[in-house]
Amino acid sequence: MAKGKKFVESITSMDEDFAKWYTDIVKKAELADYASVRGCMVIRPYGYAIWENIQKILDQMFKDTGHENVYMPMFIPESLLEKEKDHVKGFAPEVAWVTHGGNELLAERLCVRPTSETLFCDHYSKIIQSYNDLPKLYNQWCSVVRWEKTTRPFLRSSEFLWQEGHTAHATEEEAKEETLKMLNIYAKFCEETLAIPVIKGKKTEKEKFAGANETYTIESLMHDGKALQCGTSHNFGDGFAKAFNIQYSDKTGKLAYVHQTSWGMSTRLIGALIMVHGDDNGLILPPAIAPIQLMIVPVAQHKEGVIEKATELKNMLSKVARVKIDISDKMPGWKFSEYEMKGVPLRLEVGPKDIEKNQVVLVRRDTREKLFVPMDELESKIPELLIDIQKSLFEKASDAQNIRTFSAKTVEELKENLDKTLGFVNAPWCGDLSCEEKVKEVAGASSRCMPFEQPEDAGVCLCCGKPAKANVIWGRAY
Amino acid sequence: MAKGKKFVESITSMDEDFAKWYTDIVKKAELADYASVRGCMVIRPYGYAIWENIQKILDQMFKDTGHENVYMPMFIPESLLEKEKDHVKGFAPEVAWVTHGGNELLAERLCVRPTSETLFCDHYSKIIQSYNDLPKLYNQWCSVVRWEKTTRPFLRSSEFLWQEGHTAHATEEEAKEETLKMLNIYAKFCEETLAIPVIKGKKTEKEKFAGANETYTIESLMHDGKALQCGTSHNFGDGFAKAFNIQYSDKTGKLAYVHQTSWGMSTRLIGALIMVHGDDNGLILPPAIAPIQLMIVPVAQHKEGVIEKATELKNMLSKVARVKIDISDKMPGWKFSEYEMKGVPLRLEVGPKDIEKNQVVLVRRDTREKLFVPMDELESKIPELLIDIQKSLFEKASDAQNIRTFSAKTVEELKENLDKTLGFVNAPWCGDLSCEEKVKEVAGASSRCMPFEQPEDAGVCLCCGKPAKANVIWGRAY
Repeated sequence: MAKGKKFVESITSMDEDFAKWYTDIVKKAELADYASVRGCMVIRPYGYAIWENIQKILDQMFKDTGHENVYMPMFIPESLLEKEKDHVKGFAPEVAWVTHGGNELLAERLCVRPTSETLFCDHYSKIIQSYNDLPKLYNQWCSVVRWEKTTRPFLRSSEFLWQEGHTAHATEEEAKEETLKMLNIYAKFCEETLAIPVIKGKKTEKEKFAGANETYTIESLMHDGKALQCGTSHNFGDGFAKAFNIQYSDKTGKLAYVHQTSWGMSTRLIGALIMVHGDDNGLILPPAIAPIQLMIVPVAQHKEGVIEKATELKNMLSKVARVKIDISDKMPGWKFSEYEMKGVPLRLEVGPKDIEKNQVVLVRRDTREKLFVPMDELESKIPELLIDIQKSLFEKASDAQNIRTFSAKTVEELKENLDKTLGFVNAPWCGDLSCEEKVKEVAGASSRCMPFEQPEDAGVCLCCGKPAKANVIWGRAY
Repeated sequence: MAKGKKFVESITSMDEDFAKWYTDIVKKAELADYASVRGCMVIRPYGYAIWENIQKILDQMFKDTGHENVYMPMFIPESLLEKEKDHVKGFAPEVAWVTHGGNELLAERLCVRPTSETLFCDHYSKIIQSYNDLPKLYNQWCSVVRWEKTTRPFLRSSEFLWQEGHTAHATEEEAKEETLKMLNIYAKFCEETLAIPVIKGKKTEKEKFAGANETYTIESLMHDGKALQCGTSHNFGDGFAKAFNIQYSDKTGKLAYVHQTSWGMSTRLIGALIMVHGDDNGLILPPAIAPIQLMIVPVAQHKEGVIEKATELKNMLSKVARVKIDISDKMPGWKFSEYEMKGVPLRLEVGPKDIEKNQVVLVRRDTREKLFVPMDELESKIPELLIDIQKSLFEKASDAQNIRTFSAKTVEELKENLDKTLGFVNAPWCGDLSCEEKVKEVAGASSRCMPFEQPEDAGVCLCCGKPAKANVIWGRAY
């Protein structure tokens, strides 16, 4: 068996079976494992380290825009969940119910939070009295539970980790501004940190969040041409405020309802990273989010001075990157495959011959390009390369998205496109639910969003031929 | 009404009613609020910011000692919980049971994790094969649920936040070393960061964790003389490994069971901070954990140049401390009371007269001492003061603990001591459960621990008069 082959051979190619390729990476890159509970997962150290980086960067973005973290209970009494009618209708069918505490039957059953609007509203109704108390800009990092029928690690699981922001404002304008501000933060994070291009837009009535006036979304395209919703931001208007009686006295002493928003992103982003950047050798992580940016693999490490030099390089380069060294007794080829599978952006190989020449070999994970670099240039070269990898990954993903984005004038044309090549399809829509449902029925595609960028003249609806209200992006989605 | 009096007047004095004083601080310092779910709490931004600091510092200590974070599901199938007999006996009476997912009755009910030994074991049994896979040093930050009858915010609630470390080792010695290492990390954290003196020791058989061979603990003493267990570390030996069949092949190829540990600290530490340092004006936070170390309050802020100067100072001092400024339109006296209630270690007052003299007023929260400090000395003076406050708080708490630590030779003497002044009582014990139970029955005290530091001759048991096995610290506990 050739050195280092085993790891690579054991993964299904994405063209052969995309779903299998995905779960192979989840498993072989040691991101997650199945748990004994149906639809739940164990997030392993490497997967959790990615999540910790996501948390750290997003959390700072939230704090920089004035948000504070809190923690709400994980249980919602049934009566509380029922207060906002659209909301309960959307979530009740998929919640887990606690009926017993110890050996006693509870007087009222509790659901494990699928999302926490009702808990935040209950709290806001107690702590908001005057305009001085506004805005409230709260966020929470936690896990939520939705009893899904079919599950896949990171993409759709019965329990997942996320953050949920919940804010209360004095005016409608402020709430709208907040909703869009957070969507823009999400888009910036996806594009700049995860190197995932997204389309920003508004959801249709059919696709919006249960209880929201408007839902905004960022949508991205996976390798297989299916769409993934990466984050959403909801404007609730004063609907929840009325249901939960959250009123404040304004400067004139008059009582008014607050206007609220909520917004969330989840561990699903790890699924997006796999499906946007990965290849048949495994995961490819953008440097900005990679737990390990540079892996040092000594070659012929039993030879005198090799481990010492590799360790010296590690100490030196730790100042400019997140570096690890692997001096285990596995063969170098095995290590190469392992860190390719794990998507480490850069690999540094150093052996006796390199030491003689005072150079090292750098291998990019994205292009697999090999570079011979003098040791004294590493401190400047590595940050440069990491920036370049980050940039190329984004460009590559943008190109892939552009190639898979089509336009259609009719639902038949849309179907034809998607049947041939899955992707985003731009097509005009009249705004009627019946036409949206027909697209679903005929072409198996859902409306992903009405992009913020709209043509001057939207044309006519792809179904009914009436004047279109907006251009819509359609796709088959995860 | 005198300026700034309202806040102070509204809190119960600790001598009058300690329990009320405690909950007053929780509420008025805006640490937490009651939730609509029995026994659960909402951790508010200020309380959560303390928890974030606890997390940040502890997490770094864990990582520095080679631990990695993971995430396990929040549900445990009943059959999994039942695998280790002592463990299930200890926890089953106080767990919350999920019986329905959506509208369907589950085939097997799931408990919401009260602790995650069984989940880690289940995972370890899948991923540990060889000695190369050991040790596994995992930790998890999450919330757990224990269906408590009587609850108090932070001290005992149906749901609380914590970290739980779970490790697997090749040998008994390594597991023992890990158990003690983590106990020492906990003690160091409590003493150096929270300024809370602790006694390290071993729990008796009666008080140890369900399923453990040995439980080690750090115990601290509250203002009212009651004991609080701040953290525990358990050595499981190979008990769980046998129940879950976690075996590895050693270097000779022979199969052996792993040895395991677990260890945890929780949001209960916030309760300890209140009850060890607080006074009748509210919370007092050690600088090392305080979300705000220095609060700047401009005086006569409507006068020209005051807010500008205060802001300038804020920008300058942000380099050396966690600084905030309050330029809201509340009266300075109100602000003083508010930040005293919140336990901010240092307050800086600056008004027109101070600006003239190029000085500010600094007020220590712990001693309420006022200092007039030239502005150009602030950058060095503030870090000095913060270090001094941290040190004095620890010394004060140590003195308070020493004053309330007694010795007793008999159970009657122990009872007499505790009835007069609650505290720790040192007394020798023969090691028999019946004597331990008698102390509980007669004096209402439980064994807190057998301290690591033991006298050469322990003497005779406080109950039966037989030779003592160890000196035990007894107390009435939260």
